[in-house]
Amino acid sequence: MPTYGGNVLALAGGVGGAKLALGLTRLLSPEQLTIVVNTGDDETFHGLHVSPDLDTMLYTLSGISNPETGWGLAGESFNALEMLARYGADTWFNLGDRDLATHIRRTQLLGEGATLSQVTSELCNRLGVAHSIVPMSDDPVRTFLETDSGNLSMQEYFVKLRSEPSVRSVAYRGWEDATPSTEFDRALAEATLLVLCPSNPLLSTGPILALPGVRRRVANREGCLRIAVSPIVGGEAVRGPAAKIMTELGHEATCIGVARMYADFCDIMVIDEQDAGLASAIGGLGLRAVIAPTVMNSEADKVALAKLILEM
Amino acid sequence: MPTYGGNVLALAGGVGGAKLALGLTRLLSPEQLTIVVNTGDDETFHGLHVSPDLDTMLYTLSGISNPETGWGLAGESFNALEMLARYGADTWFNLGDRDLATHIRRTQLLGEGATLSQVTSELCNRLGVAHSIVPMSDDPVRTFLETDSGNLSMQEYFVKLRSEPSVRSVAYRGWEDATPSTEFDRALAEATLLVLCPSNPLLSTGPILALPGVRRRVANREGCLRIAVSPIVGGEAVRGPAAKIMTELGHEATCIGVARMYADFCDIMVIDEQDAGLASAIGGLGLRAVIAPTVMNSEADKVALAKLILEM
Repeated sequence: MPTYGGNVLALAGGVGGAKLALGLTRLLSPEQLTIVVNTGDDETFHGLHVSPDLDTMLYTLSGISNPETGWGLAGESFNALEMLARYGADTWFNLGDRDLATHIRRTQLLGEGATLSQVTSELCNRLGVAHSIVPMSDDPVRTFLETDSGNLSMQEYFVKLRSEPSVRSVAYRGWEDATPSTEFDRALAEATLLVLCPSNPLLSTGPILALPGVRRRVANREGCLRIAVSPIVGGEAVRGPAAKIMTELGHEATCIGVARMYADFCDIMVIDEQDAGLASAIGGLGLRAVIAPTVMNSEADKVALAKLILEM
Repeated sequence: MPTYGGNVLALAGGVGGAKLALGLTRLLSPEQLTIVVNTGDDETFHGLHVSPDLDTMLYTLSGISNPETGWGLAGESFNALEMLARYGADTWFNLGDRDLATHIRRTQLLGEGATLSQVTSELCNRLGVAHSIVPMSDDPVRTFLETDSGNLSMQEYFVKLRSEPSVRSVAYRGWEDATPSTEFDRALAEATLLVLCPSNPLLSTGPILALPGVRRRVANREGCLRIAVSPIVGGEAVRGPAAKIMTELGHEATCIGVARMYADFCDIMVIDEQDAGLASAIGGLGLRAVIAPTVMNSEADKVALAKLILEM
């Protein structure tokens, strides 16, 4: 008996999003689920197009990701990067040898005229991922952070400077001229359940929701339940700089702060058991709070959270 | 006391050429020696610009080449290539992880507008190669072989089909519109000694000599001794398909056949001790034959042959 009978659209960033997405793939058929992934973090390294969030999703769903880090590949070697460093290349962004193959292949196919959606679909097929991983857009949108160390790309901020600079504002460059990818557009029209994975609301789901028309379409869509999972637990991000940046930008670094950012279109906010005391405040924002264990370590955790969401 | 007081221009292809070039670098200062390398074998793999002969020279002179094969790097891993194969890429051309870094870096710098000469110089500097390795041209020239298995690029013929097809003709595509690189041009004007390394006369030195004006300038240059080392010893190529292709194209697959191809501009032909009996026939072509051990295994062999040439 299927857990859920409708069409699910999941919006996700990197590691946290990939965990819940993995859970969803275990419960839904490929026809039922579309996983739309942030590409605001994409960046060119060594002339190669790197899509960190798409790759994290690809590696997670194909079962080859590094379980220690959440990103990159298990058992990875770094010989090419070491050689690139000898050649004087900037190698602060860690690229393993097998990971490089992904970027080489992607760059080659893009250079031959394929869209990022087509490339992603091809990479998924080759690695045996049956569910659709879809870039939010085939147009370039790039997240930049205005900080006390200058204007930084997402990877410069997050990887090179280890999220240390204080953030003043976030911009999604190119969003005005970008359109949702064809599959994202289709999923937006057909979804009966929208899931905002526990990803950074400013840096991961933010760029996706900023695409022209997306936020409005999500808000206006009839017959679609919209559920967000808070990436902030007990006042801290489960992973990454979400809480720090929210604070710096004047948001409350709790699930309430996240709920405020989603309140205009979201029906349900899943918050962690640790934050049970904040449920009523979320109710005050017009959202229903559901309390659940949201920190996913094992595969069982991921499937359990996905199941809970699908059964709402 | 220096072995030689003039300016040396060496023309070379891959492994054989790199051996003698290494010997020359041990005896000449960087100011005295220019090593011009065939780029007719260059090919794009996975969207990356690969220059097999330049790389063999670079790796040999920087001391990181694989001593077993002569090409590629010592202690190389092939993890990226394995992953590229999973992505459905054609991986008949063996590219190691560290070798890939060379192609990634080269492709990036070329994409940023650098010439192949500039890129090569940069790679040399980074790997501590003091002597000048110079591509024959910054323009694309590509060697193609018309065979009984179709028209093949050099790498398709040599690597993919293991030199098995029968060759009917060889063409250096693009040679008419190519000019010698600036450093090659300068070396041509200043050389007091030209050394044709023991490389395939049709596939390695052939494309270099085919560049507009090169053969004529070499032939007409006053005060420049021109010495070739035969890559054919005892009727066989020391390495590679030179003898096979020479036979298929109607040349005699001996040092005499090589001498005939160089007779219009060459002064001295160095032939192996095994071929001592062919010296007089070479004399009959108007070249002086010098008999020497030409098969270079150890570094001592390479330096000894280089020394013998410089002392002529």
